[in-house]
Amino acid sequence: MSDECYERILHLRAIRGYDDRPIVADDLDRILEAARWTGSSKNRQNWAVVVVTDPDQRNRLAACGDYTDPIRNAPVALALVQEPDGYEFDTGRMAQNIMLAAASIGVGSCPITLHREDQARDVLELPAGSRCRYAVALGYPAADARPARWGGRKPLREIVHRDRYGVPYMP
Amino acid sequence: MSDECYERILHLRAIRGYDDRPIVADDLDRILEAARWTGSSKNRQNWAVVVVTDPDQRNRLAACGDYTDPIRNAPVALALVQEPDGYEFDTGRMAQNIMLAAASIGVGSCPITLHREDQARDVLELPAGSRCRYAVALGYPAADARPARWGGRKPLREIVHRDRYGVPYMP
Repeated sequence: MSDECYERILHLRAIRGYDDRPIVADDLDRILEAARWTGSSKNRQNWAVVVVTDPDQRNRLAACGDYTDPIRNAPVALALVQEPDGYEFDTGRMAQNIMLAAASIGVGSCPITLHREDQARDVLELPAGSRCRYAVALGYPAADARPARWGGRKPLREIVHRDRYGVPYMP
Repeated sequence: MSDECYERILHLRAIRGYDDRPIVADDLDRILEAARWTGSSKNRQNWAVVVVTDPDQRNRLAACGDYTDPIRNAPVALALVQEPDGYEFDTGRMAQNIMLAAASIGVGSCPITLHREDQARDVLELPAGSRCRYAVALGYPAADARPARWGGRKPLREIVHRDRYGVPYMP
């Protein structure tokens, strides 16, 4: 099958440095399509995406979290809204689709946590019951952009168990 | 760039029918590698995966949720464990990577909600503070398997907003 897709999944890394170009509308639409087609529990699709391009609004959104410079520096931030009866798990699936779709068309991305949800609700003018704890910054990678989290991962033997927690998967 | 990867992301669908073959060890390892390399908040990797192949154990796990037949019918269920200080958002990202990596090597997958977390904790013998609300069933698609959720999605105009919630993204 497709080794290229598999390798892209394996090597996806957050990009925190972007060049100054706005994102071409076609590219942004393709990324939004990937978000839209993400699977969700019972196909509920209890989510929304706020495309934040206005610089003042991006700065306000960035103030809602602690490590949010990519939102300030990127041309676009996608605020991922969890609607009532939605699940954070599905929001995470959508974020991964966004990042992988972006990478497949040459757009860098970085997931961002908005630690102060109440503030984010005000900034985004969300209706009661909707929440936004996560966003994804998007931009064409800067020439000198380096992956932010090439920090390695735990080995499989540390995180994988067999049938029951505590039973090693690896012999 | 790679239209093939993009199309795979767009067309990923849950598969609920599997043939009788066990999953080849190499295929399973590749899927676990994709899980392992998923990004997480601050690269915390506060997660674990329990590879459940034992039929009795799969049936016990299936009893922890309401729509869990794929766990009973698949050769493998990956129980996604959220360790203390982990986030469901990151578990969702991992699930999407698992599903996409599986699809890229010809393995079908279906995400499953375990509604009764306390029961799942007992079945998986999780330590205190760890939880498991989600699993992914894995198997080679049955010859007559049809995507379970070709049910369509909401149009972009319903879920995408511009700068603020309620401001249409589409003109």
